[in-house]
Amino acid sequence: MIRYHFGYDQHGRSRPGKRLRPQLLLRTALEEGGNVEDALDAAISIEILHNYSLVHDDIEDGDRLRHGQTTIWAQFGIPHGINVGDGLCSLSYLTILHGTVSSDRLVEMLLVLHEANLQMCEGQGIDITFESLPSVTMDQYLEMISGKTGALFSASCQLGAIAAGCAPERAKAYARLGRTYGRAFQIRDDVLGAWGATDLTGKPSGADLARRKWSFPVVWALETPPSADREVVAAAYARGSRLDEHDVEKVSAALDRLGARAAADEAHDRALAEADALAREASIDRGGTIRDFLALGARRVA
Amino acid sequence: MIRYHFGYDQHGRSRPGKRLRPQLLLRTALEEGGNVEDALDAAISIEILHNYSLVHDDIEDGDRLRHGQTTIWAQFGIPHGINVGDGLCSLSYLTILHGTVSSDRLVEMLLVLHEANLQMCEGQGIDITFESLPSVTMDQYLEMISGKTGALFSASCQLGAIAAGCAPERAKAYARLGRTYGRAFQIRDDVLGAWGATDLTGKPSGADLARRKWSFPVVWALETPPSADREVVAAAYARGSRLDEHDVEKVSAALDRLGARAAADEAHDRALAEADALAREASIDRGGTIRDFLALGARRVA
Repeated sequence: MIRYHFGYDQHGRSRPGKRLRPQLLLRTALEEGGNVEDALDAAISIEILHNYSLVHDDIEDGDRLRHGQTTIWAQFGIPHGINVGDGLCSLSYLTILHGTVSSDRLVEMLLVLHEANLQMCEGQGIDITFESLPSVTMDQYLEMISGKTGALFSASCQLGAIAAGCAPERAKAYARLGRTYGRAFQIRDDVLGAWGATDLTGKPSGADLARRKWSFPVVWALETPPSADREVVAAAYARGSRLDEHDVEKVSAALDRLGARAAADEAHDRALAEADALAREASIDRGGTIRDFLALGARRVA
Repeated sequence: MIRYHFGYDQHGRSRPGKRLRPQLLLRTALEEGGNVEDALDAAISIEILHNYSLVHDDIEDGDRLRHGQTTIWAQFGIPHGINVGDGLCSLSYLTILHGTVSSDRLVEMLLVLHEANLQMCEGQGIDITFESLPSVTMDQYLEMISGKTGALFSASCQLGAIAAGCAPERAKAYARLGRTYGRAFQIRDDVLGAWGATDLTGKPSGADLARRKWSFPVVWALETPPSADREVVAAAYARGSRLDEHDVEKVSAALDRLGARAAADEAHDRALAEADALAREASIDRGGTIRDFLALGARRVA
């Protein structure tokens, strides 16, 4: 089932992917004068940890499609889905424990990984609770994505810095940088979740809107002054059931007219500018490399 | 939700429980000349890890009642149930990472915990697959419980030995001892799952039979020569749906007449005798203390 999830073929090759988190980790390690060998265990670890969260998220969100293929739980049932996620979580930690990292650095890395996992659960817990709320503020939304997405981006950068032998303070500066990149990434991901086409996202178009997910564009739109378009969005989200294709199109168009897509793009760019400021502050001169990489990743799927 | 799961009251006291795994761990540490302080982090860690597995198992098995209270998923929904389990898993590791264990011993302990978690998932994966099988052999059953229950019992004893400063080989002898105790415990637990009353188990009587779980008595009974009673059990388990109260009583009586309950009691005693032999072999003189404790625990719930 794990092979299925990663899309391995009969030649032992997995499905190609962005591998954003391990890339962030390795690029950070290289920028700090480390080498790929010392950072590889952590990079594999974070990718597996990310995939454990995907397998569980897909059950929690009821998503039946990812990377254009039926999700684990939809294919093998919820019990196996939960259990495969649990197994991946263990494998993530075992990768780093059975690797070549020295004992002291290992404990430092495991602390980062486990704290990130807990923060991810906290963010996910908020997100699940959102589903039963009549409205969500921008502050609540930002807290949620800081855990759900920010935690692993933060850990990726921090682990890369630790792998390169950075002092704890410098590694923490990278953690802040990573969390800010996570915010940028998630806001962009929300835009794709509302307007992205299936062949680019691997998910049905407007999937996030269909299940009335509290994404950046929707949260932003509902904080605008009363208007007919705002009312369309509010009414759709006040309903107790899934939106059909027709409703998704109506909400998507209303969000566009309200300027929610443009606002999300602005918020995305603001997060990247904030990351630049954080990098300057911590004298991380080459933070631009990672930033460019992220922008590239976003363009590739956008 | 975690407070709810542990049954905390307004005075911050949790529901009383057997705490079998941390007890095993602490008793092992004491028998090996260690002290409670050095073993406490690991003891808390293993109890939380056990509870993460319970929260997920309850979803996977569809159990709505545990310790006489509605299970997390039945109370708050499956998404929160999965997420609370994930959070508990992280908290388990963070307990030991934020504790007072020295760095080298910490890595040794984390390896044991993570390997145990992975083995638990492997056992659980087999158990879930069992549900769609027309029959299960005794060997398959024993492999399943070695992971599902044995792994954490094994880890408890091994961690207690590590906390007491035992050499790796001796700690591994305790691991084997613990796994054998786990087998004894699970077979006893299966007897309770088939014949235990609700006020003793906190679960509906015959719950395991109702959902056609492959437990020791059933696996054993289906390996007996053809008979009318064996046919009652086989027919009930060949059915695609839950058994009602009437069928559960019929199956339970048939198992009794076949001698499945007595066979389970014998297998339980045999596992304890095997544990005694393992203890003697490793010159663990006072393995009897733990054995007596386990027998006491079994009597308390039986």
